[in-house]
Amino acid sequence: MNIDIILTHEAIDLRKIRGKICVVIDTLRATSTIITAVNSGCSEIIPASSITEALRLKENILYNEYLLGGEIEGQHIQNFHLGNSPLEYYNGHLRGNGLIFSTTNGTRTLQKVRKARSVVVCALLNATAVVKWLASQSKDILICCAGTRGNYSLEDFLTAGCIVSGLTQRKIICTTTDIAYTAACFYRHNKLLAGNPLSFASLLKRTINGKRLLEAGFEEDIIYCGQQDILSVLPFYKNGTIKAFANLR
Amino acid sequence: MNIDIILTHEAIDLRKIRGKICVVIDTLRATSTIITAVNSGCSEIIPASSITEALRLKENILYNEYLLGGEIEGQHIQNFHLGNSPLEYYNGHLRGNGLIFSTTNGTRTLQKVRKARSVVVCALLNATAVVKWLASQSKDILICCAGTRGNYSLEDFLTAGCIVSGLTQRKIICTTTDIAYTAACFYRHNKLLAGNPLSFASLLKRTINGKRLLEAGFEEDIIYCGQQDILSVLPFYKNGTIKAFANLR
Repeated sequence: MNIDIILTHEAIDLRKIRGKICVVIDTLRATSTIITAVNSGCSEIIPASSITEALRLKENILYNEYLLGGEIEGQHIQNFHLGNSPLEYYNGHLRGNGLIFSTTNGTRTLQKVRKARSVVVCALLNATAVVKWLASQSKDILICCAGTRGNYSLEDFLTAGCIVSGLTQRKIICTTTDIAYTAACFYRHNKLLAGNPLSFASLLKRTINGKRLLEAGFEEDIIYCGQQDILSVLPFYKNGTIKAFANLR
Repeated sequence: MNIDIILTHEAIDLRKIRGKICVVIDTLRATSTIITAVNSGCSEIIPASSITEALRLKENILYNEYLLGGEIEGQHIQNFHLGNSPLEYYNGHLRGNGLIFSTTNGTRTLQKVRKARSVVVCALLNATAVVKWLASQSKDILICCAGTRGNYSLEDFLTAGCIVSGLTQRKIICTTTDIAYTAACFYRHNKLLAGNPLSFASLLKRTINGKRLLEAGFEEDIIYCGQQDILSVLPFYKNGTIKAFANLR
């Protein structure tokens, strides 16, 4: 088992995807929101790479009843039912509903790795559940950080490091690339400052995305997304849709 | 003062160079070798981006007496006087000599940032000397890691983190990008394990480049390059050549 990390979805080499397990991370906020929606009973989420694609899917009779959610460059999308705040998805009103979901970086990352062996949706919220599932597999793992418009995102790297650290601590026989080893060190360094229960909110607030969200009035989202392991749902992306696989906690 | 890091020379955006101080890092081994050569009294080093360019420079009457040094993909270059092991450059036999130097990643990085305001050559060996000099400037800093054939190099990121950590600890008013902040955390995490005097050899041995050097019989190079602050020379790259600026220790 080898563990590697890609820092942005733009850097994903499609030839390196095949046969691997891809862990997709967009901590602020797309994967945190997807995990929350699935945990709240959302029956199915269809990631769309653009607003146009989301609207086209909605016109399909199969998805006609589905809600539209997401954001474009951090902004709410006109005529969409829901935005990209995980707190909008945090209770039971979504139970049994389907969702078409479009964001700037996260959903594009998911679509890009769709030909991998398995694609699991990950954030700090469900990190240990993801580690437990990965530990039960014997496949090479590629952790795909969404990044932000082609740039490094600290919060995605932190979550990636949490996954690498969790796997190596379980004494599973695995090799890590230099970048994966770096991420594990970075996570461990910050875990010492994260308190108990683990909260990385103060670190997330100092990131580019964290500052942007603070300015836009989404401090509660940062606090929520900074919590490690409060959910144990495992959303998988398969055949174009995201569904819960199991609750392993 | 803002501090940013570029992970590979392939990722350098030439538009972002102008007006900035560039810190060029190729810890294993080009910048460690350059720093050592300058410290040993080498009068001038001319970085060449290829063997062909090195040989062409050597034909120039100005550089006819200069020694040829460097490597190609980790191998010694036929008919070159010296390789890319810093230990070959570690004593006085270079005193007063000029050097034409070509390596796979390091010298290309130097050439790429030549239009920056200033270009300083950095490795763990002279890290604190570089920090002291940077602290005396009030300019934006771009730390350019050479990387390895377009891939992330842990040892360059570690050295970059040493620079960021050193600057922020001096309470200099500066901002750090997400990647620069990450590097500082990574460095601090590993500094706790590095002993006194600081030696990062064991960490360097587990990197891709470290393993390659171990296999090729260069363990002593890794041990040497893993030492922080044993030299205080400050080589600057200006008008196509590298010369010592001052000894600030």
